[in-house]
Amino acid sequence: MSAFEAHGEDALVEWLKQRFGSADGLTLGIGDDAAIWSVRTPTEVVLTHDQVTESVHFFPGDAPEAIGFKALARSLSDIAAMGAEPVTALVGLAIPRNRSLIDCQRLFIGMEPLLERFELTLAGGDINAGANALVIGTTVIGRCVTRPLLRSDARPGHSLFVTGPLGGSSLGKHTTFEPRIREANHLARHYEVGAMIDISDGLALDLHRLTEASGVGATVLAEAVPRSDDAHRLAGRDGRSALEHALADGEDFELLFTLPAEEARRIECDPSRWYPIYRIGGIEAEAGCRILGENGRAESLPPSGWWHQFGEKG
Amino acid sequence: MSAFEAHGEDALVEWLKQRFGSADGLTLGIGDDAAIWSVRTPTEVVLTHDQVTESVHFFPGDAPEAIGFKALARSLSDIAAMGAEPVTALVGLAIPRNRSLIDCQRLFIGMEPLLERFELTLAGGDINAGANALVIGTTVIGRCVTRPLLRSDARPGHSLFVTGPLGGSSLGKHTTFEPRIREANHLARHYEVGAMIDISDGLALDLHRLTEASGVGATVLAEAVPRSDDAHRLAGRDGRSALEHALADGEDFELLFTLPAEEARRIECDPSRWYPIYRIGGIEAEAGCRILGENGRAESLPPSGWWHQFGEKG
Repeated sequence: MSAFEAHGEDALVEWLKQRFGSADGLTLGIGDDAAIWSVRTPTEVVLTHDQVTESVHFFPGDAPEAIGFKALARSLSDIAAMGAEPVTALVGLAIPRNRSLIDCQRLFIGMEPLLERFELTLAGGDINAGANALVIGTTVIGRCVTRPLLRSDARPGHSLFVTGPLGGSSLGKHTTFEPRIREANHLARHYEVGAMIDISDGLALDLHRLTEASGVGATVLAEAVPRSDDAHRLAGRDGRSALEHALADGEDFELLFTLPAEEARRIECDPSRWYPIYRIGGIEAEAGCRILGENGRAESLPPSGWWHQFGEKG
Repeated sequence: MSAFEAHGEDALVEWLKQRFGSADGLTLGIGDDAAIWSVRTPTEVVLTHDQVTESVHFFPGDAPEAIGFKALARSLSDIAAMGAEPVTALVGLAIPRNRSLIDCQRLFIGMEPLLERFELTLAGGDINAGANALVIGTTVIGRCVTRPLLRSDARPGHSLFVTGPLGGSSLGKHTTFEPRIREANHLARHYEVGAMIDISDGLALDLHRLTEASGVGATVLAEAVPRSDDAHRLAGRDGRSALEHALADGEDFELLFTLPAEEARRIECDPSRWYPIYRIGGIEAEAGCRILGENGRAESLPPSGWWHQFGEKG
């Protein structure tokens, strides 16, 4: 139900209505069988649902605010990857008996900065106490700012970009990342973007998804892949290279996108662009993904696994 | 993600794409970061999310088809209660390790008759293996067929109706009920409906929700409340009355709605109406809910609990 219907959790529902009951942007928010968003002009409505689950996406000891933040931010990252802006969110919460009311409130408090920053409303959801594990489902509904940016629009000759350093997100970024809504909206409004996807499961795997959906291949320049400080930090601990972490770790939630040559040149000196971009390679007609090492040799870039052939030090 | 992104559940995702990959009614279905529904004319978009959780809404031994059916049908019932028709659904699945791929497929197979009957598309969702409990989150997006039917539009003088016999749903109906989409759409198109809500938590509690949202009260005629065969069956076992079961059991998923006097007279002899309706009472200005017993005495009808004062035999 849109009204947060709770079984034995009435106090939480009342608190939610007080704190998140605003229906800004909606015709009807929390409080009926469903919420209503009145669409008045032709609109590309964008729909995404994610779930974060105890022991899969977080550990029982993690701060509830961090868990709540991550749950909503993941869905917002999907909205960004379509070149869309969020309108409203619905949240489903399965709560185990060992969680307190305060824990549940803290989950929602963790979402609050995202609701404010991206001006979206909580439209409702469902809360169920008595579950055997903490599971948070987040649905975000948005609208495209121009046309939808798909995974399938990469073309040979496009350049390949990412919006930030990659790897090592398990050291913190996976619960503090910025969903790239504003960056994606700027790209959609100002550039002839080809394909776009967010990096949730690692650059290598998500690049495979993008190239397969587009029916093309890609070559990544090993040297050009930006490694985060945490990728270097992890590399210093586990003997794998920072590049391997950047390619495989995932949960970076940066945008991976392609631009035609002319647009690629234009974006690099665009004074209206406030965010970093890194050109990491190019799209080719030949299927498959390759990586060109510092030794000048191209090797196959598998969708997942470790890349021991790159003996880079962290 | 809209694409069913799975961790270690690729076989399930492939099967889903094959079986449910149709994007009928959508511009983009399963397979990108999010789904897209192109809204071309002014539309009241209706949004609802429900979660069903092991040990709360079903037991580990229940047939997966029944669990999947119930998960989706609950959200469809919320769509019906707004006077809306469904367009598409998103499903989040947290799967414990003891569940097989076949179990997961059977969950979705249980949803299939609903997808077909109400012509909605599966737009995507999220699948996560390795959870500690089975949790299914369902988001349904729909559109109003006329104006939204709210809980808050009951007025003194309206008559109160339900669309079917109540009580005893735990004996089977809770996993086999018909979401009253078609009935609600007929009501919305042909009548000046006042308030509407679906009965998920029992007639008494949901009537309280409706009257409180509308700022009115209601009197229910005990004799007029339709008891299901299963309400009588349960009453025969536990010594409570069939009326008590009809008032309190919940998970009936029938519609509870109000009509102005003229409309109430008209609906009872409408030849275009193929579904039953039961006039069970009326709306009053005085706050609170009352029930008028067969003994001719009105008593307070509390939102939940047992009604031992009605010594009716099952």
